[in-house]
Amino acid sequence: MGGKVYIVGAGPGNFELLTLKAYRLLQEADVILYDRLVGEEIESFLKTLGKEVVYVGKERGEKGEKRQKEINRLMKKYFEEGKKIVRLKGGDPGIFGRMAEEIEFLVENRIPFEVVPGVSSVNGAPVCSGIPLTEAENAFGFLVVSGSDSGRIRELHEKGTLVILMGGCTAKDVARNLIESGVDADRDVAVIERGSMKNQRVTITKLSELVERDFNFDSPALIVVGDVVRFARVCQNHEDRKI
Amino acid sequence: MGGKVYIVGAGPGNFELLTLKAYRLLQEADVILYDRLVGEEIESFLKTLGKEVVYVGKERGEKGEKRQKEINRLMKKYFEEGKKIVRLKGGDPGIFGRMAEEIEFLVENRIPFEVVPGVSSVNGAPVCSGIPLTEAENAFGFLVVSGSDSGRIRELHEKGTLVILMGGCTAKDVARNLIESGVDADRDVAVIERGSMKNQRVTITKLSELVERDFNFDSPALIVVGDVVRFARVCQNHEDRKI
Repeated sequence: MGGKVYIVGAGPGNFELLTLKAYRLLQEADVILYDRLVGEEIESFLKTLGKEVVYVGKERGEKGEKRQKEINRLMKKYFEEGKKIVRLKGGDPGIFGRMAEEIEFLVENRIPFEVVPGVSSVNGAPVCSGIPLTEAENAFGFLVVSGSDSGRIRELHEKGTLVILMGGCTAKDVARNLIESGVDADRDVAVIERGSMKNQRVTITKLSELVERDFNFDSPALIVVGDVVRFARVCQNHEDRKI
Repeated sequence: MGGKVYIVGAGPGNFELLTLKAYRLLQEADVILYDRLVGEEIESFLKTLGKEVVYVGKERGEKGEKRQKEINRLMKKYFEEGKKIVRLKGGDPGIFGRMAEEIEFLVENRIPFEVVPGVSSVNGAPVCSGIPLTEAENAFGFLVVSGSDSGRIRELHEKGTLVILMGGCTAKDVARNLIESGVDADRDVAVIERGSMKNQRVTITKLSELVERDFNFDSPALIVVGDVVRFARVCQNHEDRKI
């Protein structure tokens, strides 16, 4: 039995906002590597599990790159010992969670892995305060940046990721709309049908191809536009359709 | 014992991406009102619970307003019968989930309620496909709209909600950056410290006040800018600080 790494989102901090999957994987893991942002309630819970639990969060003033090298070294070491490793991150691993860097390392080192989304603070914290991120009259969408990039919000439509919900059955119109709004027709696109489910299907293409070809996507589907699409290669449980 | 409504996010469709809290509330509920988007796996699970389970999703071609009135009527009826109601929505209730409309109805009718965030398809579907929404080199943030608004992405910084992660300790700089980028200084802001946790604190103010006053927010904190901030009134488990 070989080792495996699970990169798992822990949610915004409330213990009960762990997913059932995160909870199960924590029970089954041999070793848990966790960040500062997982929250105190969850940190306390980890310590009751009676297994190897390693804090790998940044110390104040420490450089992220140095810490990431150490985390990578630990994932490799435990993998070589045949262990089941949960790499637990605050919020969602794909939102300011260095998921891309970690999966690049795992792919390079041929370490099998799986990524498990979590409730992001992006919606978790507002909803727990009664704030929806969209609202029929006043907010038809939302933008997300980190504090250090708060001056660059106007650049987001060019240098950020664009997520279109409920875009499956009108993907052609959506692509045309985006190009007319100034998004580069050559940008990479993923259309994800039945996201997260066993029969999930991911189609990788270009915005211009979405306009030109008839794909007949099922509903519900989600469209992701941007350079991050090149990372689409993880799940073992879906069909892939690369154009 | 009086009734109560729990507006709960079911996640992107995979059963194990339910949160522990959603799972607990579904076990404890007397009646469950659920949408089409909760996914087949979860729908099957609901039917095994042996309790009143009511499908309230839109039929094809049906108007959203008509359906919402019927959902409101049902929530009120079951509440008056003293029942514990779970209103289960696909994804996260605050992201294209009509959460604002439902809590306005509940507030008007003095029906006690709680909102529980879920894994949104926004991050859930991409992460399950190996795609992070942010990435160090190429994507410093992201934008979210629905398919029907895909032509309006350039308007988002004015008419969308703005979410700033990791902005607590530099809130003053963040507010200054936003105003310099063209965001109206008069817009409403919520700063959420320790989001989702028992000691969560929400500060409601204006962008201009954030620049002028010293608040000393704890880290981690999340900043929400936009008209949706006026809905911040739900949680019973946090301190509120209104300016």
